[in-house]
Amino acid sequence: MPAGKTMEQNTATEPIRCKAAVCKVAGQPLEMEEVEVAPPRAHEVRIRILCTSLCHTDVTFWRMKGFPPRHPSILGHEAAGVVESVGDHVHEVAVGDTVVPVFLAQCGDCPDCLSDRSNICSGLPARPGMPRDGTTRFSFAATGEPIHNFIGVSSFTEYTVVDVAHVVRLEPGVPPEKACLLSCGVSTGAGIGAAWKVAAVERGSSVAVFGLGAVGLAVAQGCRMRGAKRIIGVDMNPEKRDIGKRLGITDFINPDDIGERTVSEVVKEITGGGADYCFECIGSTSVMAEAFQSSRMGWGKTVVLGVSNGVAPISIPSQDILRGRSVVGSLFGGLKPKADIPILAQKYLDKELELDEFVTHEMGFHDINAAFELLTQGKCLRCIIWMDGAKENGSVGVENGRACKAKA
Amino acid sequence: MPAGKTMEQNTATEPIRCKAAVCKVAGQPLEMEEVEVAPPRAHEVRIRILCTSLCHTDVTFWRMKGFPPRHPSILGHEAAGVVESVGDHVHEVAVGDTVVPVFLAQCGDCPDCLSDRSNICSGLPARPGMPRDGTTRFSFAATGEPIHNFIGVSSFTEYTVVDVAHVVRLEPGVPPEKACLLSCGVSTGAGIGAAWKVAAVERGSSVAVFGLGAVGLAVAQGCRMRGAKRIIGVDMNPEKRDIGKRLGITDFINPDDIGERTVSEVVKEITGGGADYCFECIGSTSVMAEAFQSSRMGWGKTVVLGVSNGVAPISIPSQDILRGRSVVGSLFGGLKPKADIPILAQKYLDKELELDEFVTHEMGFHDINAAFELLTQGKCLRCIIWMDGAKENGSVGVENGRACKAKA
Repeated sequence: MPAGKTMEQNTATEPIRCKAAVCKVAGQPLEMEEVEVAPPRAHEVRIRILCTSLCHTDVTFWRMKGFPPRHPSILGHEAAGVVESVGDHVHEVAVGDTVVPVFLAQCGDCPDCLSDRSNICSGLPARPGMPRDGTTRFSFAATGEPIHNFIGVSSFTEYTVVDVAHVVRLEPGVPPEKACLLSCGVSTGAGIGAAWKVAAVERGSSVAVFGLGAVGLAVAQGCRMRGAKRIIGVDMNPEKRDIGKRLGITDFINPDDIGERTVSEVVKEITGGGADYCFECIGSTSVMAEAFQSSRMGWGKTVVLGVSNGVAPISIPSQDILRGRSVVGSLFGGLKPKADIPILAQKYLDKELELDEFVTHEMGFHDINAAFELLTQGKCLRCIIWMDGAKENGSVGVENGRACKAKA
Repeated sequence: MPAGKTMEQNTATEPIRCKAAVCKVAGQPLEMEEVEVAPPRAHEVRIRILCTSLCHTDVTFWRMKGFPPRHPSILGHEAAGVVESVGDHVHEVAVGDTVVPVFLAQCGDCPDCLSDRSNICSGLPARPGMPRDGTTRFSFAATGEPIHNFIGVSSFTEYTVVDVAHVVRLEPGVPPEKACLLSCGVSTGAGIGAAWKVAAVERGSSVAVFGLGAVGLAVAQGCRMRGAKRIIGVDMNPEKRDIGKRLGITDFINPDDIGERTVSEVVKEITGGGADYCFECIGSTSVMAEAFQSSRMGWGKTVVLGVSNGVAPISIPSQDILRGRSVVGSLFGGLKPKADIPILAQKYLDKELELDEFVTHEMGFHDINAAFELLTQGKCLRCIIWMDGAKENGSVGVENGRACKAKA
């Protein structure tokens, strides 16, 4: 190991004490705790979080008992922040850089990172704990008891440590509350990416989007950007019709309003035989099956983006798939984080990509449990959770026009 | 209707009496009967069958109770023959042409036929009976009772009537016992087509083929032609190792010989993480699941070619598909019959395509039930069933070197 160079890179040797919202018991409110965040080890970056947002995947894992998330843990995986310090061998980012941590690694060296066909890094596959050693950098300040981290990110804390393979550097100028949407596997990654990379939706195509949460609405937007002619949104919440239309949907189906007919029957009627592309953006295996049935014979493709509870399998009648239909799954919409997030950021700055519509609520870190309530009640798309002072003290670089809603 | 032109085309007005092997009860031996074959109606062609072969799909439908095949019926869908007469509006073939009937239509006018992406004709979708009116041209000569036809072909008869959308004209020179393999959705269509069209296997790829029947062996051959580097064959019959190697497989897995390990574990070991392409050529939903698990994360594609019993669904863990894997189904390997069968025939004549290996048995029409026994016992790949005199009287155009095996 070249000691001189190594020492030069390592900018932190001390732990930091800060606030974190800790999940102690699955499904119970997070508890605000003083935690200790160890300094970054080799290939790691310690990040001061500016803001974080809440994604359904956080809620899914928060509720889940026994499965991967081990508690106590620090959830959260959509965030933007500033590099506080770096460990040895980190050359890609430096102290003070604006970055977004991402749940999906991009080591840059494995066959997957080197291929255009994959965005599933096999060099640093998903595993519990930090990607290279499986340990955690978090502990309770009072007791020293370790706190598990979450899918390589853990953003519900004022400071986190992330492997450099999970960090994307952004040029200054992108507001952090928009940058954090870009960091997310959902609203921009999965949605826009799915329309562009996984499905490669062609001009004039017909599309059905199942579930008009942030992912589904981003899919609609992505399909509109690709020139899809018919974009059918499916959601049981009638309020999704309006925002859906603003983001690209041309037809809205509320499953409660179609009587005895199934959604796939209505989609087939509207499209004359089935949609060219169907996107499942909920994580429900029964919706996946309905999406598949809504796809056209001959070439209909069903893209699965929702993260289900991991237990129920997708069930497809084997006769039905033979007639030229396909099912493809995708994490982060097939995007490679380090290559594609900066492109999306530029599209946002160029006003080609709409992100503002997705931010329906904002609040302070101490109110994070209220964000869980809003999301589980279907009342918000994205709630931006600001760390203390991050919005007000100018470190943000821009002002956000919306009022900061605090819990009543 | 331009009556003059119509009359000019119609070359037959009389029914023909001939022999047919009729399935009266599901799973019971076929019975040789005298049947009446009505003249072709508009857009139809009456064909004198030279030879037919037996495919697992015939066996699947022969065994199936209650599902599509209605009895009495005339099964069979791999054949080669000569046009005996044509109905009105048939201009594409003429009396005396060598043709192969195909279970998959190609009307030429529908959005699917006009698209490069589909081979599932939506102009004449699969339905019971003749494609345009749902009736049958077959009846018992003695009683006049109708006999159902089978997936648009019905080749276990000396004469059949097929819609012109299901007929492919071949240049003379292709031996009928090879032409009938080309007409088949299995050995060449599904197999070669799947490697070329559905998967578009790249040079250097790794491939796992589940089931080394005629379809699987054709897949192996197709993948070798595409330059695949590693072609893993999976079959419980150890005799498939040798023929598999002749047709392209580089590694053979017998599930009975791998102890506690699963096939997918062994495939992952051989390929270093999973095959780029997995082909399910059996029609078993449990094998489909194993094939899926054997595919590589990031870009692994599972191609489903086997026709299952239509009841059990394919089951895929929803977490697993998210990591960039896909499942695609195909009938006839994505080939368009009228466009692609003549190309395959030419490849055979040019010795680029191996078909001879697939013909393991031959027999006369009266021994057709013995062919069912051979196939269900896994003792043959393809058994050519010759109509009386078709092989001997020179109408074949070539001699086949193999002895004609009759039932002992």
